Amino acid sequence: MAVGSWIGVDVGGSKLLAVKLGPDGAVEATATAVMPGRTAPGAELEDAVVRVASVVADGGAVAGLGVAVAGLVDAAAERFLFGAHLPWRDEPIRERLARRTGWTVAMDNDANCAARAEVARGAARGAGSALVITLGTGIGGAVVIDGRVIRGAHGLAGEFGHQQVVPDGLACECGLRGCWEQYSSGRALERVTRVALGRHLDGPEVTRLAREGDVVAQQAFATIGTWLGVGVAGLVSSFDPEIVVVGGGVSAVGDLLFAPARAALAASLQGTAYRPVPPLLAAELGPEAGAIGAALLVSQGSV
Amino acid sequence: MAVGSWIGVDVGGSKLLAVKLGPDGAVEATATAVMPGRTAPGAELEDAVVRVASVVADGGAVAGLGVAVAGLVDAAAERFLFGAHLPWRDEPIRERLARRTGWTVAMDNDANCAARAEVARGAARGAGSALVITLGTGIGGAVVIDGRVIRGAHGLAGEFGHQQVVPDGLACECGLRGCWEQYSSGRALERVTRVALGRHLDGPEVTRLAREGDVVAQQAFATIGTWLGVGVAGLVSSFDPEIVVVGGGVSAVGDLLFAPARAALAASLQGTAYRPVPPLLAAELGPEAGAIGAALLVSQGSV
Repeated sequence: MAVGSWIGVDVGGSKLLAVKLGPDGAVEATATAVMPGRTAPGAELEDAVVRVASVVADGGAVAGLGVAVAGLVDAAAERFLFGAHLPWRDEPIRERLARRTGWTVAMDNDANCAARAEVARGAARGAGSALVITLGTGIGGAVVIDGRVIRGAHGLAGEFGHQQVVPDGLACECGLRGCWEQYSSGRALERVTRVALGRHLDGPEVTRLAREGDVVAQQAFATIGTWLGVGVAGLVSSFDPEIVVVGGGVSAVGDLLFAPARAALAASLQGTAYRPVPPLLAAELGPEAGAIGAALLVSQGSV
Repeated sequence: MAVGSWIGVDVGGSKLLAVKLGPDGAVEATATAVMPGRTAPGAELEDAVVRVASVVADGGAVAGLGVAVAGLVDAAAERFLFGAHLPWRDEPIRERLARRTGWTVAMDNDANCAARAEVARGAARGAGSALVITLGTGIGGAVVIDGRVIRGAHGLAGEFGHQQVVPDGLACECGLRGCWEQYSSGRALERVTRVALGRHLDGPEVTRLAREGDVVAQQAFATIGTWLGVGVAGLVSSFDPEIVVVGGGVSAVGDLLFAPARAALAASLQGTAYRPVPPLLAAELGPEAGAIGAALLVSQGSV
């Protein structure tokens, strides 16, 4: 048995979130830190990862560090290839962190890590197969088959957000048009609300208004929820998962998103007379999912 | 080692095609038979399967019979659930055929069987992961991960044809609108040609004209080829396969389909600056792929 704690750090576009798992696997400590920014030198971000991990370690022995990153990780899970909000570009981040700390280090995409956590102890526990979708600024995703996250031939499986859902549709930051995440994400929520109101509200504001009963805000969630269901139906046709789990900040609004999404999923899936519509469930682990999954990744089942 | 030959029968909408594999795995004999028709009693189709299998067995010992079927097969690979062109409806076909023949029988969807054959000895040989797409009247498909066909939680993975690619698009036989197979399939080829010419030509006629240099027929292939590439790009985002293999009758035209498809795939895939575009290859085994894959399925690697 490994000596010391398993630590997970989620490296996002605006902050770092660290967790330490206790001997029973429960979260024993958490810490957050500000992200140095995507224009800062990459080494500063490495420093920040080590620092926030050390905060939760609090001087105790570390069995291993898992790192969840907002971006693309190569097939070997060694290199951080690209992420719009992080400074690293095709760099051997796993090895650098391991050399710098002397710890066992594992790294994967944040959506893959969140999926591991939801499978191990969240909404997808016990599921042999699942799709896990993270609705944040954009759409992240992960594919679980036979209980394992499938990483793809180049580490890029589960990048659902850039499937074309509208020919010649809205321009996407990725350079393409009509990408799913332009229609169902935090950015889409803000755009739909802006068009209806003529002014900008950020996602949490729209969520608050919707919960307070504001019809425009609720309609905005219905719009992106319907697009969520349409896109999920396409993925279900391809993967035939037991369940679909949706997390991320945008999902916190609950049924105002999930009810229209479930209706659109059932209406957009072929052959529901002879096949079940898989349950579309809310993720359970909240904003710590990525960090917990990163810790589970490096523990490789030891927890 | 098993005694006797492995036999595969592909049960399609218009005919049955049987193969017998020799001791080295090569196809030693083939036979075809007319499909009794979707309104004939299901037992007649069972009779026809056994009969055409017996023709290739030719009195020799049979180690096992694999059956590839044009329709949906349940998760246990026991029941034929539904197929628009076959008479069976939610029936335990595998067991019935086994009881009737006394042979070991295995059954799966035809696209899954074709994918097994392409992985074992066709365009996908050696690939750890692949998408195999069959362009016939509609779109069939299969997902290969870690060298194995993934069947999904209910046996329905790889049903790519009914993903929505155009909101409120063309009506599909499945009852939905805007399904991919309405834009890239034999049916789509015929529709595009009919709109351009004002008269109906079937798929093989369009193929012949395109090969002879007819501009309208070539443009029809360019149109469905472009839609092929767009749809494949979405699947590649989700699965990140090593390669994509396209077979089926419509693919026989070759580069008139594949060139526009490859261009659209490269143009529709996010982030090609930091990821490879997977090769889009023609299937190699032709119309026997399903039957060969069915024989390989029942042989479970013995061949």
